[in-house]
Amino acid sequence: MTEQHITFRPRPDQFAFTFGGAEPVLRVRPGSVLTLWSEDAYCGRIGSAQDLASAALNPGELNPQTGPFWIEGAEPGDVLAVHLVDLTPARSWGASALIPFFGGLTSTPQDAGLQAPLDERTYIYEYDSTRHTVQFSAQAGDFTVALPADPMLGTVGVAPAQREVRTSLVPDYFGGNMDTPEMRAGSTVYLRVNVEGALFSLGDGHYRQGEGESCGTAVEGALNVTVIVDLIKGGEAADAPAWPRLENDTHVMTIGSGRPLEGAWKASQVEMVGWLSRLHGLDLLDAYQLLSQISEVPLANVVDTNFSCLTKVDKRLLPSAPVFDGIHADLARRAAALGTISY
Amino acid sequence: MTEQHITFRPRPDQFAFTFGGAEPVLRVRPGSVLTLWSEDAYCGRIGSAQDLASAALNPGELNPQTGPFWIEGAEPGDVLAVHLVDLTPARSWGASALIPFFGGLTSTPQDAGLQAPLDERTYIYEYDSTRHTVQFSAQAGDFTVALPADPMLGTVGVAPAQREVRTSLVPDYFGGNMDTPEMRAGSTVYLRVNVEGALFSLGDGHYRQGEGESCGTAVEGALNVTVIVDLIKGGEAADAPAWPRLENDTHVMTIGSGRPLEGAWKASQVEMVGWLSRLHGLDLLDAYQLLSQISEVPLANVVDTNFSCLTKVDKRLLPSAPVFDGIHADLARRAAALGTISY
Amino acid sequence: MTEQHITFRPRPDQFAFTFGGAEPVLRVRPGSVLTLWSEDAYCGRIGSAQDLASAALNPGELNPQTGPFWIEGAEPGDVLAVHLVDLTPARSWGASALIPFFGGLTSTPQDAGLQAPLDERTYIYEYDSTRHTVQFSAQAGDFTVALPADPMLGTVGVAPAQREVRTSLVPDYFGGNMDTPEMRAGSTVYLRVNVEGALFSLGDGHYRQGEGESCGTAVEGALNVTVIVDLIKGGEAADAPAWPRLENDTHVMTIGSGRPLEGAWKASQVEMVGWLSRLHGLDLLDAYQLLSQISEVPLANVVDTNFSCLTKVDKRLLPSAPVFDGIHADLARRAAALGTISY
Amino acid sequence: MTEQHITFRPRPDQFAFTFGGAEPVLRVRPGSVLTLWSEDAYCGRIGSAQDLASAALNPGELNPQTGPFWIEGAEPGDVLAVHLVDLTPARSWGASALIPFFGGLTSTPQDAGLQAPLDERTYIYEYDSTRHTVQFSAQAGDFTVALPADPMLGTVGVAPAQREVRTSLVPDYFGGNMDTPEMRAGSTVYLRVNVEGALFSLGDGHYRQGEGESCGTAVEGALNVTVIVDLIKGGEAADAPAWPRLENDTHVMTIGSGRPLEGAWKASQVEMVGWLSRLHGLDLLDAYQLLSQISEVPLANVVDTNFSCLTKVDKRLLPSAPVFDGIHADLARRAAALGTISY
Repeated sequence: MTEQHITFRPRPDQFAFTFGGAEPVLRVRPGSVLTLWSEDAYCGRIGSAQDLASAALNPGELNPQTGPFWIEGAEPGDVLAVHLVDLTPARSWGASALIPFFGGLTSTPQDAGLQAPLDERTYIYEYDSTRHTVQFSAQAGDFTVALPADPMLGTVGVAPAQREVRTSLVPDYFGGNMDTPEMRAGSTVYLRVNVEGALFSLGDGHYRQGEGESCGTAVEGALNVTVIVDLIKGGEAADAPAWPRLENDTHVMTIGSGRPLEGAWKASQVEMVGWLSRLHGLDLLDAYQLLSQISEVPLANVVDTNFSCLTKVDKRLLPSAPVFDGIHADLARRAAALGTISY
Repeated sequence: MTEQHITFRPRPDQFAFTFGGAEPVLRVRPGSVLTLWSEDAYCGRIGSAQDLASAALNPGELNPQTGPFWIEGAEPGDVLAVHLVDLTPARSWGASALIPFFGGLTSTPQDAGLQAPLDERTYIYEYDSTRHTVQFSAQAGDFTVALPADPMLGTVGVAPAQREVRTSLVPDYFGGNMDTPEMRAGSTVYLRVNVEGALFSLGDGHYRQGEGESCGTAVEGALNVTVIVDLIKGGEAADAPAWPRLENDTHVMTIGSGRPLEGAWKASQVEMVGWLSRLHGLDLLDAYQLLSQISEVPLANVVDTNFSCLTKVDKRLLPSAPVFDGIHADLARRAAALGTISY
Repeated sequence: MTEQHITFRPRPDQFAFTFGGAEPVLRVRPGSVLTLWSEDAYCGRIGSAQDLASAALNPGELNPQTGPFWIEGAEPGDVLAVHLVDLTPARSWGASALIPFFGGLTSTPQDAGLQAPLDERTYIYEYDSTRHTVQFSAQAGDFTVALPADPMLGTVGVAPAQREVRTSLVPDYFGGNMDTPEMRAGSTVYLRVNVEGALFSLGDGHYRQGEGESCGTAVEGALNVTVIVDLIKGGEAADAPAWPRLENDTHVMTIGSGRPLEGAWKASQVEMVGWLSRLHGLDLLDAYQLLSQISEVPLANVVDTNFSCLTKVDKRLLPSAPVFDGIHADLARRAAALGTISY
Repeated sequence: MTEQHITFRPRPDQFAFTFGGAEPVLRVRPGSVLTLWSEDAYCGRIGSAQDLASAALNPGELNPQTGPFWIEGAEPGDVLAVHLVDLTPARSWGASALIPFFGGLTSTPQDAGLQAPLDERTYIYEYDSTRHTVQFSAQAGDFTVALPADPMLGTVGVAPAQREVRTSLVPDYFGGNMDTPEMRAGSTVYLRVNVEGALFSLGDGHYRQGEGESCGTAVEGALNVTVIVDLIKGGEAADAPAWPRLENDTHVMTIGSGRPLEGAWKASQVEMVGWLSRLHGLDLLDAYQLLSQISEVPLANVVDTNFSCLTKVDKRLLPSAPVFDGIHADLARRAAALGTISY
């Protein structure tokens, strides 16, 4: 089976707004390179600081997904491996919005109250592609600062199980809107396949995001995206993840999502205990003990319908233990071989 | 007023087990250097893998505190600044214990259930002072690995307000058992003074700890500790912290504690929003927006009576803005001038 | 438009397992009486104490729904009013199961840990239709007790908004698996319509349930169900509920769902503050104050994917204030006029 | 040992504001009748609707406690039984205050945010001792309603263990500020003794309170209080409660406190599972199953530093099983024999 290099830029009517429930836009073979375009979380409706969220946004059209892609041969229990080859800002600016009753330091529909909402504001961050920075400018003063750009995808996921269809605003066991800065170029995401064809999609590009995504929005921006999509069949995948996993050159990571936040943490930890146990031949209590001393735990978001938390382990601390036969290194090598991607 | 260099090693009957409520062991002048010895969290009752927690430990004598120290002139509203000069393992081994109904991946008295407890185990980690490592050995197999030592204090605190006395197992606004790896040599801790004399103490040394302290215990060990204690008087301290703050050469940090975990996160975030606002002349919404893009959020512990979470900001991303007139740099300079500490 | 009395007993292949996403089984006119049969939560797979959950159940076929019914003329923003006329046990026994990693006093996938699961057990409760009791018999001793039967529906709901499809195990703003004993005959449920046709369904009959549904299962049993379904059009429904509401002869109630449990409580409270405000012409703070002194707050479940909590107000404490033009009294009158229902 | 009838009305300088840490005001023998006066939660600082909380209150003097009383012979592990004989409003009005950043439907220091506080308001409720009602009057309109008075104590507790001293605002395993309407005349409270002498106190009278105490304050008012205090010695008390228990003529109840709210619920449930198991000779899983079908679960408060939740079981559903040798019935008989209490 020949691997493909597919380029796909969705038409405005081709976005999906759910995981599950949307017709696939393309069928792709495992091992294919996909060069994609992803619209920003606002569906392109915010273009200036005057575009305040409550007036500009369509609540039914947030986090537009590029996809879903039907992965040939994918069946429930398999593992989808998506290597992020390149994420490049597709516009010269990104935008972050303070949205009424959305974010981490305000009441929300999930954590309701009677206080008045915070004021709305929209911040435009100019993206300097030469210096690779995004520029923050205060609205109540002259303060400005150029911050390093660090492009990432807020949303990567597959269709859920149990006949469910979930909005692209939700992070859960199927991936989705996890909003972690670790979802950057160079990482490989592992997702359990829940339905035939997997129905993989991505979106919600961020030019930069802090851990926790405090106000609810990052420096949101359209992205040019190149990924390699591969498939680990069930035969090999007795270790199919219950929660999304990430691997880069230095770390293995698990991402739990839930509420309250300790639920997200526990999910990521139990997933990592099992993973360490398997990789290094430890029993669960030994793996628990070891993890207690080496865990890195950055939050991803404390603002979405579910919160997300990472557990990271630095591979360099431990004996070498290839994950899924070393697929990350293989994909990274293939990515390098692609050279510079032009969009 | 001459600064002092005081050496204090508590007798077994001199430990405190509370924040507040204990008589001061010494009165010290602001600016003093303290060279101290801290016993491990087990009060020295665990010495081998055969010492299982439920038999070996005295629940009323955990996290013994070295102190409290009465800081001359400290009054409510002042800020205590404690610079951690040096933390050196005082024994050739540390110990981590799996304790029934304690830890992050089990039911606990605060999160009760009907399941049987996990098995008890005690792990002894040999400390290699030359390579500066601690050695993990699995109990159910041959796996071993040497991990870099990274000594830290689990517990640093002052007496609480409102006449309260809290056990040294609790982290809260007065500091206490925050259990963050950031409490390492080179850091300056800022704590609001709640009672006259501040009544500062420290303990619960860890030779190494993962973020979250998953199983409830780090590589616990006795430490030789050198700190400089200083005082920022109320006049200068209109910005007295509501929650503990940390500063090192690269970051400013706030530590929130509470339950559920999002409460700890929110506390650390609101504290940092206020701090950024003050340091950089931003209004609260601008500070909230900026923090959303630059926050680093590692968990501290998800196992204590309150959970603890950090919000970190990399000072190098922002314009220079000295904290409390640059006291951290001053203290770091004084620490360097002390040369190598011998115990 | 003539009102209908429709009788519908689903074939085994006609059950739905989701809110949203399933084809309607019937189209019914507002005002219609529906006489239905609902299978138990286990899809009939548990018939004796030897049928343990992990072997007997199909995780993809739980909480089978009778429906969905397309309500003629229902549009988003309308309010569906469902009056529960009669709930009669359809079998001579119900069953409650202790299911591994499910329930309130064990770790669960949403609140994960490393402890071993509780033992599985299945309890058969004989239903005595003359005395109207269900019989509990201990498995580890001779203790037996006959408890009053109090039939209720665990699950009543409509299709969610935002293109979502949710399993019938979830309670949320669209109703669903709320698991409250208040969902008994004599109550009227109000649900906001989210999609054209509303797509209303019900199931998960309980012959009796404690508040909280501690172990995760009630005395689950097939039910004969008679309801009247009515529609309040948007014109009248400027007060369309954000969360499910209930009314019976003595109380008005709101049901919030979420995690942590305080989120469910807050949702029910804010909904009731708004409702009291509207019914009695109070501003929000006056309604908040009044509610603080008259609220009754029984938990519904602390075991489902979302937890559910009620806020109840005794109508007899307050001046008369008809809800939706007194539709509950009208429906109760119509129900009485139906006389004894025979199945 | 002769039983005493002691009358005690604290002088303004005699109130305690903590559990633990305060000197006993009296030593009393087990079996004594205490006729007491308790000041309101505001320490009497609110007397009219013009007294807004932020100006009127002293944050260090809230929930003044009448006591503590040293109970002769009480030792750790014993059980203190306090029978509430009579609670009579001591003033002709009570007051409820909306306090900035306090209450269930606003951000708080424990659940921080950036929104502006709700407006402050103070409501005076006239108490009509003839009709036994308290009168609510809206501030933004003419709405008034007379609500039945239902006097209760917000705060009943003993000194905590582990050398701790806690403010009288906190509910926990030692009782304290549980804020449940079930703490009314006719109830017997069981509290584990943690320190010699028990150091029992009470306060925070409410003329009426809704479940949850939504806005954070009930109809707060000074009370005349008569209780009988008795002691169950450790020998008899192998079943010493881990959490406060209540008994009245119809129900046994347990009160859990913690955060998040499900932690409070779990504590109350596990306590009741153990209690049912012991009373009726059930194993824990049988007790769990039975409780699942008979639990009543009203919330107590969702506003204090810890939240509180009750688990109630209707004794009339189960075979007779006297608690602590029927001490509640004995105390109720003694209370009846006291006749009408005059203050």
